[in-house]
Amino acid sequence: MKRLVLKFGGTSVGTIEKIKKVANIVKKRFSEGHQIIVVVSAMSGVTDDLKSKSDSISPNFDNKELDVLLSSGEQISCSLLAGAIIDLGINARSWMGWQIPIVTNVNYTSSTIMNIKTDEVVNFLKGGVAVVAGFQGISIEKRITTLGRGGSDLSAVAIAKFFKADSCEIYTDVEGVLTTDPFMNKKAKKIDKISYEEMLEMASLGAKVMQPSAVQTAMIDDIPINVRSTFSEKPGTKIISEGETDYKKVVTGIAYSKNNAKVSIVGVTDKPGVAADVFEPLGKNNINIDMVIQNTSLDGKNANITFTIKRADLKKTLNLLEKNKQKLNYNKVTQDDKLAKISIIGAGMIANPGVTHKMFRSLASEKINILAISTSEIKISVLIREDLTQKAVKVLHKTFKLD
Amino acid sequence: MKRLVLKFGGTSVGTIEKIKKVANIVKKRFSEGHQIIVVVSAMSGVTDDLKSKSDSISPNFDNKELDVLLSSGEQISCSLLAGAIIDLGINARSWMGWQIPIVTNVNYTSSTIMNIKTDEVVNFLKGGVAVVAGFQGISIEKRITTLGRGGSDLSAVAIAKFFKADSCEIYTDVEGVLTTDPFMNKKAKKIDKISYEEMLEMASLGAKVMQPSAVQTAMIDDIPINVRSTFSEKPGTKIISEGETDYKKVVTGIAYSKNNAKVSIVGVTDKPGVAADVFEPLGKNNINIDMVIQNTSLDGKNANITFTIKRADLKKTLNLLEKNKQKLNYNKVTQDDKLAKISIIGAGMIANPGVTHKMFRSLASEKINILAISTSEIKISVLIREDLTQKAVKVLHKTFKLD
Repeated sequence: MKRLVLKFGGTSVGTIEKIKKVANIVKKRFSEGHQIIVVVSAMSGVTDDLKSKSDSISPNFDNKELDVLLSSGEQISCSLLAGAIIDLGINARSWMGWQIPIVTNVNYTSSTIMNIKTDEVVNFLKGGVAVVAGFQGISIEKRITTLGRGGSDLSAVAIAKFFKADSCEIYTDVEGVLTTDPFMNKKAKKIDKISYEEMLEMASLGAKVMQPSAVQTAMIDDIPINVRSTFSEKPGTKIISEGETDYKKVVTGIAYSKNNAKVSIVGVTDKPGVAADVFEPLGKNNINIDMVIQNTSLDGKNANITFTIKRADLKKTLNLLEKNKQKLNYNKVTQDDKLAKISIIGAGMIANPGVTHKMFRSLASEKINILAISTSEIKISVLIREDLTQKAVKVLHKTFKLD
Repeated sequence: MKRLVLKFGGTSVGTIEKIKKVANIVKKRFSEGHQIIVVVSAMSGVTDDLKSKSDSISPNFDNKELDVLLSSGEQISCSLLAGAIIDLGINARSWMGWQIPIVTNVNYTSSTIMNIKTDEVVNFLKGGVAVVAGFQGISIEKRITTLGRGGSDLSAVAIAKFFKADSCEIYTDVEGVLTTDPFMNKKAKKIDKISYEEMLEMASLGAKVMQPSAVQTAMIDDIPINVRSTFSEKPGTKIISEGETDYKKVVTGIAYSKNNAKVSIVGVTDKPGVAADVFEPLGKNNINIDMVIQNTSLDGKNANITFTIKRADLKKTLNLLEKNKQKLNYNKVTQDDKLAKISIIGAGMIANPGVTHKMFRSLASEKINILAISTSEIKISVLIREDLTQKAVKVLHKTFKLD
């Protein structure tokens, strides 16, 4: 007998028919003799609908009331699923965040789980299925909190941790984690095993099957994750620690993010603290800096600083640079706003020094120009023209034998 | 400074625009210096939508989970309204049933409020508006409960009682309690004052402005009610104790209920206990008996028993009578399934013995035949053909000077 956490996302409980299907999956797993804690998201579309209601009332809708509002989405899916399981003759009951309780800090709309009381639910698991509302908790002020978008993944992983579950299964509408976005490359294939670190890079770069901070929590507490489909019986993708993965392939997956912009500040004085002077006002205005490249000029007096940001932040960034022109004392600012970042990810790279070279050669063969590069131990990212995204994904997918 | 309970029904908070309007009413009353507890229903249509979801999962959807599901409707309207009030610069916060808590018994889907803890909210009222979700509570088992349909009226009255409020204002989409249904008679007029007893009769007979059991609770605890419109500034209808009303008019209002059926059992043996034998199987099958008339035959051996029921229960009733034919030993059963009940209501009747006569004469003048009669101290009801309902309502409205 194992203790399992099964998490079902919004598309998995998006209709009454799908909720009934999920109830059958839960019944099957329970009948196998496992202790089951189900974690559910809101039915797809519900959270967006609630959010648009609050937006219509006020663009500055109170955070604490927003959490009360949004948490109702999971209350609906959770009670419907519990009712559907009971209807199949299995003992079940729903738990809201405040009922367990799942205690969070007071950071409304994006709280962090601090503690989960387990005794009542553990007792119930002996004879029934616990269905827990994801995404929500209760603060020490006794008010409803939410964990922010995608927070049900975080709920599932935290519940797996506090309940000492044997594994955490993330049920979704795809068959697992894919080597790349199937809309970008039809040859995308399911990955059988992936390390937390690789998954973290994939998730951060837009593979939407799991929320990055949930992957991070699973990594820290070494909770085995299985991403699988609600709509097929096939085994999914196992997310495990690096030591347990076998690296037949150097590259595990290819991720991309569109809508990037590049800004270059030409001719700033090359003195200590100049980069800090550039980025401080941007950080204070919540502009997220991604890649950064700094070139010193040959005479050692001036430098060029290039960085990438989300395209949506470009106008704000240019205004801030203009405002600080006197202080920064630069020559001019150039920009390019139609760029994409393509990344190859794989823990196998560490032992294969030829990967960088192979990646660049592969892109060059398709006449794709690289505008910037950044690397980590398990990832190489390049900045390219946005309209070449699909071409780049396809050639890299082939080059690294993922087809 | 007064302590007021303001209750807003589903149509009053049916859209975002209406919620903003309600927020403005609340602001106005708060700015007058009153302590304000707002009680809200779910946005109109939401509860029905949630109910249809649970029905699609199972016709026997678990009661406890149904309460979790349905209570989310008030959670949505409550948080939206609290957010809208805060947006107007007034301190406010939402309270769910479990947060106060509003403690009920364990009769899920139709619980009764046992107790309300007041200290936290009372403390908050000194500097802000409390917005409380109607219709819901928490049982001693720590699970969410609901009070049954129309339960927000009950919540409002119970809150007025436990918080020792000076009055309870029921905001709705009509300007108050009307002398009769305006769809039946355009000459229907707003009643300025009505006693609890009269209101109870009106509400039980289909005047939908307030739920009968809420009126009853208000009557027992002598809580002054004011039924008024969310969409106009006009004073509404005051519901007060009988001693405080001034009876200029003998009849206060005219109510009706359609879809009645009449069943007559002809020739049952006239012995003690025969009526009990007739009604016991019906009662056990949840068939609600309304009017009952028993005529003894001239020879004293046989009797005819006539009673009215809802038309929907007719088939079931006839089957039960057929099943018990041997025991009841009756001659035959006759029935009529297209009948309506028309009632004139007024505490002023007690002192005016001529009312019954006047009512019958008035109906006769329109050639409306009376099929059965039942009376109470403040009400006379007659059974007539359903297609004559409007004619009867109009002539009685005129006869008793309500036009």
